[in-house]
Amino acid sequence: MIELTAAQFALVYNAFSLTIAAMGAATVFVWLGRSQVADAYKTAMTITGLVTAIAFYHYLRIFDSWDHAYVVANGIAKPSGKDFNDAYRYVDWLLTVPLLLVELILVMRLSDAETWAKGTKLGVLAAIMVALGYPGEVATAFSTKWMWWGLAMIPFAIIVYELYNGLGEAIAKQPASVRGLVKAARNLTVASWCFYPVVFVLPMLGISGRASVVAVQVGYTIADIVAKAVFGVLIFMIAVRKSGVEANRGANLQAA
Amino acid sequence: MIELTAAQFALVYNAFSLTIAAMGAATVFVWLGRSQVADAYKTAMTITGLVTAIAFYHYLRIFDSWDHAYVVANGIAKPSGKDFNDAYRYVDWLLTVPLLLVELILVMRLSDAETWAKGTKLGVLAAIMVALGYPGEVATAFSTKWMWWGLAMIPFAIIVYELYNGLGEAIAKQPASVRGLVKAARNLTVASWCFYPVVFVLPMLGISGRASVVAVQVGYTIADIVAKAVFGVLIFMIAVRKSGVEANRGANLQAA
Repeated sequence: MIELTAAQFALVYNAFSLTIAAMGAATVFVWLGRSQVADAYKTAMTITGLVTAIAFYHYLRIFDSWDHAYVVANGIAKPSGKDFNDAYRYVDWLLTVPLLLVELILVMRLSDAETWAKGTKLGVLAAIMVALGYPGEVATAFSTKWMWWGLAMIPFAIIVYELYNGLGEAIAKQPASVRGLVKAARNLTVASWCFYPVVFVLPMLGISGRASVVAVQVGYTIADIVAKAVFGVLIFMIAVRKSGVEANRGANLQAA
Repeated sequence: MIELTAAQFALVYNAFSLTIAAMGAATVFVWLGRSQVADAYKTAMTITGLVTAIAFYHYLRIFDSWDHAYVVANGIAKPSGKDFNDAYRYVDWLLTVPLLLVELILVMRLSDAETWAKGTKLGVLAAIMVALGYPGEVATAFSTKWMWWGLAMIPFAIIVYELYNGLGEAIAKQPASVRGLVKAARNLTVASWCFYPVVFVLPMLGISGRASVVAVQVGYTIADIVAKAVFGVLIFMIAVRKSGVEANRGANLQAA
């Protein structure tokens, strides 16, 4: 832990508090919205809210850990001697990142066999990716950090490939009215995930010291809000629109 | 932080506690009421409750921060050395002010394209407005404060213009039974929002020292209750009335 200015400490502190509010709000939003979607999409809504609820829990812990790691006085935030527990992030991602991919697959409503095959494949790859990143995060030697970063990038690359290829075909079969939204959700996942390996390497790129601490914490926070809360709202919109399309189709079939 | 009388400290303390109760109550009111409105208005009700729920969370934090910022003894509230974190307000507004505009647009039930266009435009303007106000709030030099205040007033003015012009036409197309209520909700938004830039400039107008601290905190608190909780009840009333009108129209069509 290194000394920060009071303003730097406060920026991270307020970013964490904002994330608690955003994750809590997103959770309630999709869980209340669950009653507005067809039965086929209710599990997707449950899981979408679980992702933000798990993040809500971890940001409460992260906020407290940050608050206890420093003592602020006279414009300076001095380390209190208690370490800030960065591992909360990896515990969170280990649970939420596989679930994020599962919610995307569920809202696409593929066949049961495809849902299971793609869900387990992407979910396991995501868990491996997070597990490989952790030893790099806690290592201090840059060479060790780069090695684990490189290893974690392998499952990362396979997931991105799968999202554009295997899932690309499935997206092309989605109803026309949601195809754009599903593509947007897929692209948002990939774009927001690109934040993480970049934030990870900031300290290794010479962005060191105080600015690096603040950039890493605020960077991960923004990435989490986009990848989980904004993504969750997109998944809800897809589910509502598909529920409408399918209800209309059912009504037309009955009328015919 | 400056010294206050115990009575001044208590006035702000009790105003914050009242706001916690009011925001919590408003949240439960609209979320329970969600089951009484037609499906088309359920998302508006969800978001109306999210605004007050997010404010509820922030007022819990604000209350604690205020309580820890002073030590009260012998009729005097002395600064404890821990800063009162005013940034909670801006974090709150960054999330809730765009959502407030979105709930107003959703309850009007425009076309999907118009809802999206007006929602993103007003939401983004609102977020910019809040983000521009923050550097002014934390600045100490009056000239700097005035500059950021002036910059924040630009999106503020555009939003007010949009609410009376772009949205004015849409209001004219609302069912006769709710047109007055929708206008009232729109006017309440603009009127309550006018509090904020006024409260902001109180310290710059020579209302300084103890009275200024109390006026700013109590002023923002009243504005928040009106803009979020009272406004939320209006949105609920509009949704209930429109649900009734549309159910009647549906029944008349079936009878014809």
